[in-house]
Amino acid sequence: MTFKAAERGAISPFIVMDVMREAARRQAEGADVIHLEVGQPSGQAPARVREAAARALVEQPLGYTLALGTDGLRQRISRHYRESYGADVAPERICVTTGSSAGFLLSFLAAFAPGDRVAVAAPGYPAYRNILKALDIECINVPVGADSRWQLSAEVLAGVPGRLDGVVVASPSNPTGSMLDAAQVAALAAWCEGNGVRLISDEIYHGISYGRTAGTVAGMAAAPHAVVINSFSKYYAMTGWRLGWMVLPDDLTRSVECLAQNLFISPPTLSQIAAEAVFDCTEELDARVAAYGANRDILLNELPGAGFDRLAPPDGAFYLYADISHLTGNSAEFCRRMLAETGVAATPGVDFDPVDGHRTMRFSYAGSAADMTEATRRLRAWRK
Amino acid sequence: MTFKAAERGAISPFIVMDVMREAARRQAEGADVIHLEVGQPSGQAPARVREAAARALVEQPLGYTLALGTDGLRQRISRHYRESYGADVAPERICVTTGSSAGFLLSFLAAFAPGDRVAVAAPGYPAYRNILKALDIECINVPVGADSRWQLSAEVLAGVPGRLDGVVVASPSNPTGSMLDAAQVAALAAWCEGNGVRLISDEIYHGISYGRTAGTVAGMAAAPHAVVINSFSKYYAMTGWRLGWMVLPDDLTRSVECLAQNLFISPPTLSQIAAEAVFDCTEELDARVAAYGANRDILLNELPGAGFDRLAPPDGAFYLYADISHLTGNSAEFCRRMLAETGVAATPGVDFDPVDGHRTMRFSYAGSAADMTEATRRLRAWRK
Repeated sequence: MTFKAAERGAISPFIVMDVMREAARRQAEGADVIHLEVGQPSGQAPARVREAAARALVEQPLGYTLALGTDGLRQRISRHYRESYGADVAPERICVTTGSSAGFLLSFLAAFAPGDRVAVAAPGYPAYRNILKALDIECINVPVGADSRWQLSAEVLAGVPGRLDGVVVASPSNPTGSMLDAAQVAALAAWCEGNGVRLISDEIYHGISYGRTAGTVAGMAAAPHAVVINSFSKYYAMTGWRLGWMVLPDDLTRSVECLAQNLFISPPTLSQIAAEAVFDCTEELDARVAAYGANRDILLNELPGAGFDRLAPPDGAFYLYADISHLTGNSAEFCRRMLAETGVAATPGVDFDPVDGHRTMRFSYAGSAADMTEATRRLRAWRK
Repeated sequence: MTFKAAERGAISPFIVMDVMREAARRQAEGADVIHLEVGQPSGQAPARVREAAARALVEQPLGYTLALGTDGLRQRISRHYRESYGADVAPERICVTTGSSAGFLLSFLAAFAPGDRVAVAAPGYPAYRNILKALDIECINVPVGADSRWQLSAEVLAGVPGRLDGVVVASPSNPTGSMLDAAQVAALAAWCEGNGVRLISDEIYHGISYGRTAGTVAGMAAAPHAVVINSFSKYYAMTGWRLGWMVLPDDLTRSVECLAQNLFISPPTLSQIAAEAVFDCTEELDARVAAYGANRDILLNELPGAGFDRLAPPDGAFYLYADISHLTGNSAEFCRRMLAETGVAATPGVDFDPVDGHRTMRFSYAGSAADMTEATRRLRAWRK
């Protein structure tokens, strides 16, 4: 007997993870692979985080916590908003999550009904689209380009035909690294509020920028219905610890709590305990951002000589998004060949943009400077 | 402007977690609370698990893993099936998950479309119902009682009116602790296979039983479409580590992988590394099961004297499910009053059974023997 499977379960792979698998396979076979595909910090979490975890391993039972997270961490995140942004965010509005991934799932489920229409930028983080599809929410891919700094501004959204129920905005953006400034964020939030459009502000790359400063939607009086999503995986370098948080609007707090109880029970306990220490590691973390900045300079200097010279504005995060339409019309095949022939793994644009991604690709520069230098050396030799 | 929120987000709370919160609040105020509400082992994970974690904190970068989990853990779980059940389960069919919670979410999304009909036992684990509702799947509550040992047998399912697309079965069961024997599991799997009904076998309480032995659906040749869900939170006592696994049928493996990539990225890395060690801790874990058994004896001996004398067959897990219809018609109010007047927290049946739960409740005996003795002393004094 053939069993049916759910059509909504047949979502696209998160292609970067398939690239990771292929790169890991080649590496296991002895190939010398340089990882410019994965969007994660190299190296360990800060020493104080690991020390706090080591202590908790000895001293704490590490059972379930409350679904919204430990009181200690929620209070520490609230203090972070006060200290870093001057924003007033009550601990009661903070939901600790199992990575930002859980934040997207929970907020999408709580805010959007099947058939609702939610705008995302193309190019944008592929999991937005794929999670929306899995939850039967219609994903409206809105093409963005140089004229809006590759972002969904209020002007861009006003031009989208048809009803919108929500929008997901990321500044700094994955994959482009481009940012909205504080005034643009405020205009966007006001437009969403005035038009009944639920704003999901993905702020997981906050803290990683090179000159521009990111504005937060958290605590913004003019955005009482917005959801803010953040993560300990990027600036805070606690990637595999699977921890993030949301700042919730009052009207979604209880439904998110009930969903979190049922879908997750609680976020990882050891990670929650250790994460309290990460807010005191600013010096170490900022040094990492400086290292990302140096990596970015290497790529910006060297990639053009390998033919990658059409780049989105690299304001923040640790990504360069390249238009490679002059090199290929099939970015997936191009990246596969590049990996096979040079050992440099990168992500084809089709992961981020269902329309134009066949002629774009993303380099991640979260790795080491030596890797950046060696990767660009190989790419220049390859493209000669 | 009022924003709409999604109706499907408005699911029931997982009431035991609300009871936990109320118990924690009372404790913070100085009350002497005994926790018979929470379904989690007391105490820490085995020493070897914590040692492995401590080593990994020093030595490993702890970044993302592959979405289906590390190769090492998937191979170790495969070996576990060979050694403990004599079952042949290829590592490729194993998906490591962020707790069994993620297993339910992923398998329900992959297997069932909106409007599909999935049977669950009433009483049963509340998150089944609540996750199904959040995903727009119709939950068919099938009342079970003494005649089928509080389980969904093939006979019970055959009597359910209307089409069924799936069924979730748990043996040992939460909240009743009752079990199906191997022959009943085989009959159930055959019935599901023959009727095109996707069987989700929740085996998270395997290893915790008192005389009877649980049969697994994993590797069963007659059940090629079944999904098995398991957890490191119960027998393995790694509760807050948020780790579990699934054994997937071939027809769902790729869709679950894509969903896991997008919804979770990967399960917690430190937990995955440490969990490999837990399979070598059988002696310590079996000693815990013996302690649960001693707790069970205390409750079985002492609770009847407090009026709790109508209990489901306590074959396994660490729960006693009591019919308290002779004591109250409002189990939620009864449990609230019991907590307030005795400091003993337990879970009202309404969490588990939307039909008859107003006259039942669940005691968890995963705590210490001293807690069991003191709790029954207080309850006997209270009910005098």
